[in-house]
Amino acid sequence: MSDPRNIYDEQVNHCRETAHLQAALGLAGWDQQTMLPPKGRPMRAKQIAALTSVLHARETDPAVGERLDALEGSPLADDPASPEAVNIREWRRDYDQAVKIPHELAVALAEAASEGHAVWERARAEDDFPLFAPMLDKLVDLAKQKAEALGYEREPYDALLDAFEPGETAAAIEPLFEELRDAIIPLVAAIGQADPAPPLPTSFFSEDDQKAFLNDMLRAFGFDFEAGRLDTAAHPFSQRIAPGDVRITVRYETNDFTNAFYSAAHECGHALYSLGLLDEHFGTPMGRSVSLGIHESQSRLWENLVGRSRAFWTFALPTACGRFPKLAAPAPETLYRIVNAVRPSLIRVDADELTYNLHVMVRFELEKALFRGELETGDIPDAWNEKMRAFLGITPTSPAVGALQDVHWSMGYFGYFPTYALGNMYAAQFMAAARRALPRLDVEIERGDFTPLLAWLRERIHAEGRRLLPRDLVRNVTGQDLSPSFLIDYFKDKYGELYGIETH
Amino acid sequence: MSDPRNIYDEQVNHCRETAHLQAALGLAGWDQQTMLPPKGRPMRAKQIAALTSVLHARETDPAVGERLDALEGSPLADDPASPEAVNIREWRRDYDQAVKIPHELAVALAEAASEGHAVWERARAEDDFPLFAPMLDKLVDLAKQKAEALGYEREPYDALLDAFEPGETAAAIEPLFEELRDAIIPLVAAIGQADPAPPLPTSFFSEDDQKAFLNDMLRAFGFDFEAGRLDTAAHPFSQRIAPGDVRITVRYETNDFTNAFYSAAHECGHALYSLGLLDEHFGTPMGRSVSLGIHESQSRLWENLVGRSRAFWTFALPTACGRFPKLAAPAPETLYRIVNAVRPSLIRVDADELTYNLHVMVRFELEKALFRGELETGDIPDAWNEKMRAFLGITPTSPAVGALQDVHWSMGYFGYFPTYALGNMYAAQFMAAARRALPRLDVEIERGDFTPLLAWLRERIHAEGRRLLPRDLVRNVTGQDLSPSFLIDYFKDKYGELYGIETH
Repeated sequence: MSDPRNIYDEQVNHCRETAHLQAALGLAGWDQQTMLPPKGRPMRAKQIAALTSVLHARETDPAVGERLDALEGSPLADDPASPEAVNIREWRRDYDQAVKIPHELAVALAEAASEGHAVWERARAEDDFPLFAPMLDKLVDLAKQKAEALGYEREPYDALLDAFEPGETAAAIEPLFEELRDAIIPLVAAIGQADPAPPLPTSFFSEDDQKAFLNDMLRAFGFDFEAGRLDTAAHPFSQRIAPGDVRITVRYETNDFTNAFYSAAHECGHALYSLGLLDEHFGTPMGRSVSLGIHESQSRLWENLVGRSRAFWTFALPTACGRFPKLAAPAPETLYRIVNAVRPSLIRVDADELTYNLHVMVRFELEKALFRGELETGDIPDAWNEKMRAFLGITPTSPAVGALQDVHWSMGYFGYFPTYALGNMYAAQFMAAARRALPRLDVEIERGDFTPLLAWLRERIHAEGRRLLPRDLVRNVTGQDLSPSFLIDYFKDKYGELYGIETH
Repeated sequence: MSDPRNIYDEQVNHCRETAHLQAALGLAGWDQQTMLPPKGRPMRAKQIAALTSVLHARETDPAVGERLDALEGSPLADDPASPEAVNIREWRRDYDQAVKIPHELAVALAEAASEGHAVWERARAEDDFPLFAPMLDKLVDLAKQKAEALGYEREPYDALLDAFEPGETAAAIEPLFEELRDAIIPLVAAIGQADPAPPLPTSFFSEDDQKAFLNDMLRAFGFDFEAGRLDTAAHPFSQRIAPGDVRITVRYETNDFTNAFYSAAHECGHALYSLGLLDEHFGTPMGRSVSLGIHESQSRLWENLVGRSRAFWTFALPTACGRFPKLAAPAPETLYRIVNAVRPSLIRVDADELTYNLHVMVRFELEKALFRGELETGDIPDAWNEKMRAFLGITPTSPAVGALQDVHWSMGYFGYFPTYALGNMYAAQFMAAARRALPRLDVEIERGDFTPLLAWLRERIHAEGRRLLPRDLVRNVTGQDLSPSFLIDYFKDKYGELYGIETH
């Protein structure tokens, strides 16, 4: 038998090669949403399918399984904190997830996702939930088969959740969400009684001016334009192509410059995480992000905890006024109020940072019910509206602004939504730890110096790759178990002060 | 044994899948030259290598050889003009070329090309031929091994030539080039005696204005911006990604708008050919271009035979004056003279359409001598200068503007240069046939109506795919064997009239 080190190196090479092909896939996806001429779309779908098929074959290559069998008993796996042991552990997780799903099911899932997306687009455009329901039935059924193939301890939904947020279960999330919900609902109600925030002064913000402002802000945050790009796309996203190549996109609204800014700040948070992964671990789990939720914590941290802070606007407002001469220089305090307006609304992606979490919980409740067999897809619109009333006190006027608003289910992504609210909790808990480590953080932010914060995130979170599972990372970084209390305290302190309401 | 039709379909599917992966490779190449952030470059080289390796494995897959063995004796190969028979014939050519080269040689060629390019860049920057010579020795030696592996009838160089221009040999090209050279040299000398062309009026042409002008012109030529893009790159190129997605790039010089225009017209010619290939044959040889030379005929036709004609500038000048208000409206005749200035110069890519061919012949002579063992790489600069004096009457002042100016040899492309002059000959012979078929062509071009010309090219050339080898295609399209006389007559008529010299 070969030396374990040789086997390990062979597996690293296999993984790196796979990562290079994944980069090509990432590029094809980025290009599709930014550069692709319209008549190139049908072929692009086939190019992506061909690349995906090559990647799937590599990920399920029996040689990988054989290498892992040899490595798991070897001295390389002895120290669980060593890069080698972490990689072996995570390779096993990925390989098992890949091979547990039978080929026919994988094909059926991919086809249903593609078909589902098309049907959903039409259903949403026509505001017709029954048009989507049979497709959704099929998608749920396939996801149940997937859950059975992957296996679970308590309930099928956990298998899906675990694929997005390793180690997480519905039962473990429930108390966190409940505690958060019970704090947010009265807070939102109290804010509703208070003075509403003033509207943003009416103005025209040209795309060029906005882009220049975003360049200023992203540079200040630490985004390296030699290692990334900022482009325009219908739906903002960030795409890591490879080390040294991470791209973000935004969409510009010419009557509100804060819209593109918050998209950019969010995507920049994702990009900074990607750029903070260590090149030396490229292509291996140690060079990959932990989970969707941890990724989201980084985007939310920059978007909300930094970007919606008073300190940030103290720094950014002079630059904004320079880039937008018509902005008529509002006071930082006014802008701070504007970007922190809170009001229950129908659309998740447009929600403020408080009610956003309630939107996530609506979906979590429905997903659980679907996979526990307590809800039929045909009953989703009613169930959706009922949860909206219970959590946000408002009722969607139609499915297009209700149960049809999100793309996720149409592509078979069940168990994805909770990671958004988990991301918010992680972000608040990380930020509380960062404040303890960086007592002058607000002063630094007021000066536009984001280097200490980014350095702290890089060292404590980004450079760790996948060494730890999400909850272990949280504990390691913050010294405490994951808890919604940090997010709740942040909300109470901030909105209590801002709206002059008693929150403690 | 399976039904041949099933085997054929299986091979088509294999090829289409390969073509989708080639599209991903094409996209990676395009992005590298247009969008890639600088720090993404090292990884991009590895991504391209990984994709190339996947493609090479598919192209040399023994299953392809088995399918071809079965198909060659089948009824599908009976009618040599049928798409099936053409595809079987060309699949065999491609497969044999791929498998004849031993794996170690393929790897050595790829590595030498990569290393050679880097060494050449440094040697050119430092104007130091001896720095490049040992690398060039290695590249020539590997190319000789490649020629031996591929096989040839008369001389090794033919094997390399055939890979770029199927069916062509040095002996077959020699008399064509000689005839062309004997006509061009005295013509260039006579023009040298005549009045020089006036310079372009000094002005500043902004990149935005130039881009708008190129958009006007490319649209007029028939380039579909729903199926392609125009971007900026350091070196102009065209890249077919897939049907419905063909991209061209140019570089802008703000003191001369004609520079970007002629690059765009050239690349547009390539793009129109790519867009004219039939979608129904996508991924198979019937849906591919014939050869480098035929591709070049299409770019040269639009760049020179259309773009440098009096009729074209009669149409284009009012648009140019509208886009460039500072252009101070020269007469069409003046502009026609400006863009047809002829003067021997050192750099091939900057040469006028007459002397361009002499540049190609310099390289052809040297390549032949190298592969016949009549020339050592160390003696190239002297041999180069000698040929420049003999053909163009000028002597390069140093290797950077002599034997080091072109990238081709550094990447192991020997036998590539002749396709440029062949392309010019094909273009003139095609254009003569087009004029016979479209007697009102000049009037249509003056009106900016390029539809009849493009339709003729599409039907007679583009839609043919690889049905015919280059010389057979020329005969089929024009009714005559390939001859330099069409290009010579075009030159004599045009420049005789323009410069008032006796040419016949």
